[in-house]
Amino acid sequence: MLKNTAGLRIAFQGDHYAFSEIAAKKYFQNEIVTQPCQSFEQVFSAVKQKKTELGIIPIENTSMGSIHRNYDLLLEDGIQIVGEVNLAIELHLIAKPGVSFSQLHSIYSHPAALEQCRQFINRHSHIEFISSYDTAGSVKWVAGQSRPDVAAIASREAAIDYGMNILIPDIEDFQENITRFLIIAAHQLELGAPNKTSIVFATKHIPGALFKSLSVFFLRDINLLKIESRPLRGKPWQYIFYLDFEGDLHQPNCQNALNHLEEIAQFVKVLGSY
Amino acid sequence: MLKNTAGLRIAFQGDHYAFSEIAAKKYFQNEIVTQPCQSFEQVFSAVKQKKTELGIIPIENTSMGSIHRNYDLLLEDGIQIVGEVNLAIELHLIAKPGVSFSQLHSIYSHPAALEQCRQFINRHSHIEFISSYDTAGSVKWVAGQSRPDVAAIASREAAIDYGMNILIPDIEDFQENITRFLIIAAHQLELGAPNKTSIVFATKHIPGALFKSLSVFFLRDINLLKIESRPLRGKPWQYIFYLDFEGDLHQPNCQNALNHLEEIAQFVKVLGSY
Repeated sequence: MLKNTAGLRIAFQGDHYAFSEIAAKKYFQNEIVTQPCQSFEQVFSAVKQKKTELGIIPIENTSMGSIHRNYDLLLEDGIQIVGEVNLAIELHLIAKPGVSFSQLHSIYSHPAALEQCRQFINRHSHIEFISSYDTAGSVKWVAGQSRPDVAAIASREAAIDYGMNILIPDIEDFQENITRFLIIAAHQLELGAPNKTSIVFATKHIPGALFKSLSVFFLRDINLLKIESRPLRGKPWQYIFYLDFEGDLHQPNCQNALNHLEEIAQFVKVLGSY
Repeated sequence: MLKNTAGLRIAFQGDHYAFSEIAAKKYFQNEIVTQPCQSFEQVFSAVKQKKTELGIIPIENTSMGSIHRNYDLLLEDGIQIVGEVNLAIELHLIAKPGVSFSQLHSIYSHPAALEQCRQFINRHSHIEFISSYDTAGSVKWVAGQSRPDVAAIASREAAIDYGMNILIPDIEDFQENITRFLIIAAHQLELGAPNKTSIVFATKHIPGALFKSLSVFFLRDINLLKIESRPLRGKPWQYIFYLDFEGDLHQPNCQNALNHLEEIAQFVKVLGSY
């Protein structure tokens, strides 16, 4: 059954018009109340402590890969993935109306956004690129300054909302720059008909462990949608795996595959069906 | 046969005492001539154009994951992986002798280093954290300033070399912060007895494609050391895979596995045995 989401609260990292908030509004078609947080840890805390019903976090980006610190936070108890949304990240250079590029001395943005504009940064070595805790927060800060030598890198939405001007659009290194966001909740919550399940598992240190682990899905015709190994901290030659597969835990073949995987793996944690 | 590496030149991204250079010196025990470059692209160009015999690039980090843009550069022709080295990345706050933390207004470092010190940055919101093209280059720049309000985040080696003071050691978010670096060359070059091979492959869009692909290794008792899927640009539901396995291409079972994989996969590219 689909839940009526109107009026639900969702925590996100950053200021209003951060990409996480834009992704949340895309997913829920604006019917939701957004709650800014300083850090990913605070987003998880808000959800666990029931300050908000939902949270949204970035989990991977086409040019930067998986965000391991959010996978680490997902491994803690009391959090379920209940939805996902992809958003094309277009990064724009934003300044006050009337300011020209040649006036700029300092450009502010989130370090991940700066990392995605490295070619632009390298071409303009006379400008200082300054890390801030959020893309949209930088626009808000620049809007409040009387100096004409500052700008920010952020979303079009942030530029519009703060009455700012896009000096140079699309300054990201790669045109196809997509971030996948996860919606999280403290309990299983069906936002839509689930068709995907995310798990994390560790194999035992035995020959062919990964092959045996994957066979539980392939032998049941379950499609894999993502796989990634990650070395286990402080345990050489041991790995954990992030795995997304098609289907949800109400389907007997998926439940059987997971039961089978538990026979083989050192641990299995279901992050959610969505 | 092991190559005598004394006097070989190696290109790296950053200024002297960047982590890439420290990793190169760790691997070659200081017997090598290092060549700073502004960007990863320039490291690859230096190697392809024979300006240096070798290059070194970061490829993955325990907290930040795989560096996809370097995988993209490895996919281009004319580059082989010939070695690897892991380095613990310890990030220190570095200022001129006599400068105290309370004097600081601006701290400079590479955006990836800033990303790894996010908790430290969040705790000190009155300080500006400014992106630079390199960690060690920031120390060099700070060393040349007469202002007492600037500092850098970089390696211990950079602090020592520029006669600077470590104000606060180990400010990275996670203690186990290890980066894996690859040594690259224009041709196969045995720096040591090879025991690992890296490949990239794409599966055909058929059921069980990944399982069939992995079976070519498991059926020959070849251990996998890394696997990661990445969506193919502009091709929904299609993936490329990064795979590292134990063994080298001189071993018949590894060569047979690759021949078998070529029957199944859409494309296979060997990045190198090392």
